[in-house]
Amino acid sequence: MTAILKPWIFTAHCPSRLGTVDVVTRFMAETRNYVLEMQSFDDRELERFCIRVEFRPQDDNFSEAAFNAAFAERAAGFDMEWQLRTPEHKPRVAILVSKYDHCLNDLLYRFRTGQLNIEIPVIISNHPDLESLAQWHGIPYHHLPITPDTKAEQEAQVWKLIQQYDTELVVLARYMQVLSPDLCRKLDGWAINIHHSLLPGFKGAKPYHQAWAKGVKLVGATAHYVNNDLDEGPIITQGIQPVDHAQYPEDLVEKGQDIERVTLFKAIRYHIEKRVFVLGQRTVVFAD
Amino acid sequence: MTAILKPWIFTAHCPSRLGTVDVVTRFMAETRNYVLEMQSFDDRELERFCIRVEFRPQDDNFSEAAFNAAFAERAAGFDMEWQLRTPEHKPRVAILVSKYDHCLNDLLYRFRTGQLNIEIPVIISNHPDLESLAQWHGIPYHHLPITPDTKAEQEAQVWKLIQQYDTELVVLARYMQVLSPDLCRKLDGWAINIHHSLLPGFKGAKPYHQAWAKGVKLVGATAHYVNNDLDEGPIITQGIQPVDHAQYPEDLVEKGQDIERVTLFKAIRYHIEKRVFVLGQRTVVFAD
Amino acid sequence: MTAILKPWIFTAHCPSRLGTVDVVTRFMAETRNYVLEMQSFDDRELERFCIRVEFRPQDDNFSEAAFNAAFAERAAGFDMEWQLRTPEHKPRVAILVSKYDHCLNDLLYRFRTGQLNIEIPVIISNHPDLESLAQWHGIPYHHLPITPDTKAEQEAQVWKLIQQYDTELVVLARYMQVLSPDLCRKLDGWAINIHHSLLPGFKGAKPYHQAWAKGVKLVGATAHYVNNDLDEGPIITQGIQPVDHAQYPEDLVEKGQDIERVTLFKAIRYHIEKRVFVLGQRTVVFAD
Amino acid sequence: MTAILKPWIFTAHCPSRLGTVDVVTRFMAETRNYVLEMQSFDDRELERFCIRVEFRPQDDNFSEAAFNAAFAERAAGFDMEWQLRTPEHKPRVAILVSKYDHCLNDLLYRFRTGQLNIEIPVIISNHPDLESLAQWHGIPYHHLPITPDTKAEQEAQVWKLIQQYDTELVVLARYMQVLSPDLCRKLDGWAINIHHSLLPGFKGAKPYHQAWAKGVKLVGATAHYVNNDLDEGPIITQGIQPVDHAQYPEDLVEKGQDIERVTLFKAIRYHIEKRVFVLGQRTVVFAD
Repeated sequence: MTAILKPWIFTAHCPSRLGTVDVVTRFMAETRNYVLEMQSFDDRELERFCIRVEFRPQDDNFSEAAFNAAFAERAAGFDMEWQLRTPEHKPRVAILVSKYDHCLNDLLYRFRTGQLNIEIPVIISNHPDLESLAQWHGIPYHHLPITPDTKAEQEAQVWKLIQQYDTELVVLARYMQVLSPDLCRKLDGWAINIHHSLLPGFKGAKPYHQAWAKGVKLVGATAHYVNNDLDEGPIITQGIQPVDHAQYPEDLVEKGQDIERVTLFKAIRYHIEKRVFVLGQRTVVFAD
Repeated sequence: MTAILKPWIFTAHCPSRLGTVDVVTRFMAETRNYVLEMQSFDDRELERFCIRVEFRPQDDNFSEAAFNAAFAERAAGFDMEWQLRTPEHKPRVAILVSKYDHCLNDLLYRFRTGQLNIEIPVIISNHPDLESLAQWHGIPYHHLPITPDTKAEQEAQVWKLIQQYDTELVVLARYMQVLSPDLCRKLDGWAINIHHSLLPGFKGAKPYHQAWAKGVKLVGATAHYVNNDLDEGPIITQGIQPVDHAQYPEDLVEKGQDIERVTLFKAIRYHIEKRVFVLGQRTVVFAD
Repeated sequence: MTAILKPWIFTAHCPSRLGTVDVVTRFMAETRNYVLEMQSFDDRELERFCIRVEFRPQDDNFSEAAFNAAFAERAAGFDMEWQLRTPEHKPRVAILVSKYDHCLNDLLYRFRTGQLNIEIPVIISNHPDLESLAQWHGIPYHHLPITPDTKAEQEAQVWKLIQQYDTELVVLARYMQVLSPDLCRKLDGWAINIHHSLLPGFKGAKPYHQAWAKGVKLVGATAHYVNNDLDEGPIITQGIQPVDHAQYPEDLVEKGQDIERVTLFKAIRYHIEKRVFVLGQRTVVFAD
Repeated sequence: MTAILKPWIFTAHCPSRLGTVDVVTRFMAETRNYVLEMQSFDDRELERFCIRVEFRPQDDNFSEAAFNAAFAERAAGFDMEWQLRTPEHKPRVAILVSKYDHCLNDLLYRFRTGQLNIEIPVIISNHPDLESLAQWHGIPYHHLPITPDTKAEQEAQVWKLIQQYDTELVVLARYMQVLSPDLCRKLDGWAINIHHSLLPGFKGAKPYHQAWAKGVKLVGATAHYVNNDLDEGPIITQGIQPVDHAQYPEDLVEKGQDIERVTLFKAIRYHIEKRVFVLGQRTVVFAD
């Protein structure tokens, strides 16, 4: 089996009304774009339409700019926002970490093998520990220590790096710092955090210890967008793992790593494959 | 929250070519049918296109006949087969059973509570045991015993009942008889069987005993369409359950019941919600 | 394969100290009781020892009374509480329900087929709806309506029935009433409730609606012992089910039924098979 | 919470007979070994007893040799085989790989972080590709290419390395070579292989392609001991992953990696924590 060309991906969302699907699919047909896979959803409660199309242009002279210009005319009147992702596009993802490296290591492995089709221009940490791991993968590592006194300044540096490296997505891969409301606002909708509990259960610090004390029989992880409310951003995906009485808090910390890293990876993949739409507190995820 | 009207469901499939989506969605828009949810898939290997649309007509004088007549013109040239399911439609499902009643009991419960939006005009069994269960639900029960000598005759009676009760789907809810090739052929594509193993593992008789002897750590169930090859029809869905050393064959028989009945129910629901398309040996399932 | 005799079950718990296992197993050997399966756990944090033994007496004149008398001497000094369950014992389980019948129907099915080895002497409800279901299974059904004004009186009647029917376990199978602290106290440790969320998430009313609003990607159910704090009793087991954006609150209500009933069944089975030990807020569950 | 000392682990198995548990636990009590956790199982069909005890010696002068000598006397007459694992013991695990590195990378990560408490004295491959990965972890890498003509010779070298590095366990981490019956025999019971299907389904080459062609809705991985029959050794653990129609064979190959590596890791952990007992074609696994 020869290598399969990745498809183009088109996504759009707009207020609910008659004809939303047609405006997209008719255009696809008329501009000779072959639809491989398509999903649409019209949210009854939130009155919002979302669509995702994987397609392959049939004309050799297909042009992104021409597509966008022509489609803009069609979509006029629908108040539609849309995006086109080329098959070659590799989102530039900045990763923030602290000392735990299980998520980082996992993302770097998937990055290295191409399973995660991204660039990682920079890794930022408030600790020096993971520098050699970053180096082995040839990725710049910025150590920006933080204290209560230097928090504002450190965050300013973080923000500068994110901008400087031309970042499209920020991933908090067990970054053990509470971001300020200001930075949260700046990252709203384009930063993904992994929290090691099944939100809304066990918000805040040491969720595995909370879970042990409560005696739950399932622990989990939640990948969500950062917004201005700690551990409250729109959830992208969640994973779970059964536990029993013989597992003490330190066991949960260790055994939860697998579900954390897979859950974070899945959320990033959904995001970069343009499968996620944020509708207020909820997300529409056209999973595969 | 008031009761929500069920949507109309449109499904179609045809050979792959440019414009398949558009022929459907343009028609939907032009005939003022509001699309709630849509999924399409174009199989690269099997070169076949499938689409499923949930919609709500906006015009009061919407007519099924008119829709079909008008769409027939549009779809000409696409070699397309399609179906329209009205919100009110309740498929007539004949159930075949033997002595095990866990699947039957489950289906009857979901039928009774409306979770499974079907009619059950008849239950047919080669044993008399489950008659009172059928009676409590007010469903005709036909006891058609079978011996090696009377197999052909019994199957003829089964077939006659299936026709006589105007059946749209046949469900083998742990019917412990191997159907003849002839009956399989007649039921090809519109009969669902539940086999108590993860096919293709452990085909044939006593799969839980086979599973125990092999020492597997997961057992499962497979719901598939009947075709002319025993335990080989296209798979609709599969479920699993972990097992350990302490579970003897009779434990697997008992503990497997939950996964069997849920797997069978899921397959029936997918089928009647028009989520399943058969592509040769494989199925496309637009799951929810 | 011939029917397998059920084993005797011995369970005990006591404060942690050296020799706890030995006091049990030495006695088993000396009194010629064949150990089929055994599990013990000594909780480091709570400093409590638990043991569960399945065994088969080898002497024909084995007597429960003699066992208990002799073991009492051995266990002196260990501050040990123990229980012996005969193979024939069928716990008497009173079930409380309201209008939802999915859990009740499931328990009655498992009761009827012997999968759940219990007696159900009585079903109590604050609504008349499920009487015919109880009747078909030949079980007395007491309709005890409740209003804010009659709550105390109704609970007194409930409690009287529980005692009168010589109940060993009370199951709240979606009983939609908040028990008073007084009744909770009386039932502490021998009543099991099913809550339709992954506790501690979404306590209180309408958890599926809360879950939808929060946009979680997994919903679940929690079976726990009743104690004097609403939705806070020790958790026995939990189950989950993935959900996506297309499922509205009413879909969650419907689709959650499967995980609710299986989770409740599992908890009851663990309880009657003497697999559960309550250690403060947590449980030790020797699952199979 | 301070670091918790790992426990000693004692395991034993012998033919079924009265008193097997007692011979172990009485000795533990008399030699002042505190039992933290214990599991025993007596297999009715295979008539074999297995026990696993986690304990902590209470006497400062506890000695492995003295324990073994004294226990040998006790166990005489039970035909018992037993093993004692010290808290400090790190099994020496040789890893065989080919080109796929997802399992190797995962094992190396868990080795590096101490999650997998082993030594990896050597990595052996029939390809040079993964040498730098081994080097970064400071582990000797032996590239032993293989052709049909040199198979016997290559296997002799492999075997020599396994011996030379004083190996206690051999892991085939997607080693894409069929071992000769002779090498299988030598490794019987102390080599673990990962096969990328739910055995006994899809034995042999390209199981994901087989799975796609068959249209299954679940794919999986099986970790099993190597014995003299290809893909037929006793199963330790299995994992699954749902798939749908949109996943082509190359997607299954990629998406199966997560379940393969977790399943292999779990099997190795069970093995080195002495949780696995081989009883003919089946295993007893005292999982946690």
